[in-house]
Amino acid sequence: VTAGPTREWLDDVRYLTNASTGRMGIEIAREARRRGARVTLVHGPCSHPLPADVETVAVDSTADLLRATRAAVRGADFVVFAAAPADFRPAHRTAGKLKKRSRAARRPLRLVETPDVAALLGRTKGRRVHVGFALEVEDSFYNALRKMRDKRFDAILLNGPQNVGHGGGRAWLLTPDGRAEPMATDDKRRLAKAILDRTWPTGR
Amino acid sequence: VTAGPTREWLDDVRYLTNASTGRMGIEIAREARRRGARVTLVHGPCSHPLPADVETVAVDSTADLLRATRAAVRGADFVVFAAAPADFRPAHRTAGKLKKRSRAARRPLRLVETPDVAALLGRTKGRRVHVGFALEVEDSFYNALRKMRDKRFDAILLNGPQNVGHGGGRAWLLTPDGRAEPMATDDKRRLAKAILDRTWPTGR
Repeated sequence: VTAGPTREWLDDVRYLTNASTGRMGIEIAREARRRGARVTLVHGPCSHPLPADVETVAVDSTADLLRATRAAVRGADFVVFAAAPADFRPAHRTAGKLKKRSRAARRPLRLVETPDVAALLGRTKGRRVHVGFALEVEDSFYNALRKMRDKRFDAILLNGPQNVGHGGGRAWLLTPDGRAEPMATDDKRRLAKAILDRTWPTGR
Repeated sequence: VTAGPTREWLDDVRYLTNASTGRMGIEIAREARRRGARVTLVHGPCSHPLPADVETVAVDSTADLLRATRAAVRGADFVVFAAAPADFRPAHRTAGKLKKRSRAARRPLRLVETPDVAALLGRTKGRRVHVGFALEVEDSFYNALRKMRDKRFDAILLNGPQNVGHGGGRAWLLTPDGRAEPMATDDKRRLAKAILDRTWPTGR
């Protein structure tokens, strides 16, 4: 299970990130543990407390997340990509601290895409079940279905932007057959249970 | 007292920030309360629990921090600028979510400076005592002294970059007479007490 945001550094003190608390992935890890799985939680800096009884691997950037998740999925049957990795990073990281009124600070910042962890690991998924998340603002079903196909997910939870950092918004679980089931998001523990009820690999 | 980081949004889910937990300002607010002061804590998103017995005002961006702090300092004797506001913000905030492989994402991001809260409020400080913080990577004493003068601080705590989010690094309290006193940073509660011991306004 991956969880939390990642950080992409502009200099030694500033970074790009998002408001993910890690809660969703943490509840999924906890629920998977409850079902008897051996769980590895690869997590960015979470503001929600980590579960005590699963293996945890802390990461910072999206590149770190890729490396750690690639190692963690070896031999796994089931992977839930619940992290909210930063999709962009500053092309250059300034050593030290970018100073106000400096030439370096006036230079436009080029953003480059970070590696797509779920898509890259999807290429070699074999018989592993992969479940992902999508946060879509517009054209949401269309984008989430495309994301599920591109990343070879077996199911994807589609969230509105109001769900980052707190529940309460609308969400659907989409499956490759095109079905979309509305899911209650106000209780992330129950949502974790509902997702695993529908995606837990059986008969292996 | 101001505390915590601020967030400067690139789009509706991503922002620039820093790793400040808010702990330093929170401990200063707590210690000031212990000394009998009426305290207002203006804070960005803190990962450290807020004190229960002081007035708190939550803010998000540096512009919010300026507005709320400007209101909070009216009638105050003593202001500690312990927040770590983002000094730069994306010149434009994209509505929705910046999409990968989009033209908008390839466009260079222009960063602009956010308002300097301590410097702006320093201009009209009158008899208020202002204490600030500096996080300096290089030329640190020189930069911190200039910052103290530019922002009209009565004292400034100079930190190395290793102190963001956790103590343990080196720090000095500088005063306008040019003195620099080394301060222990491993216990932020004790550091808060030591700072207030040396800067608390008396005889007013």
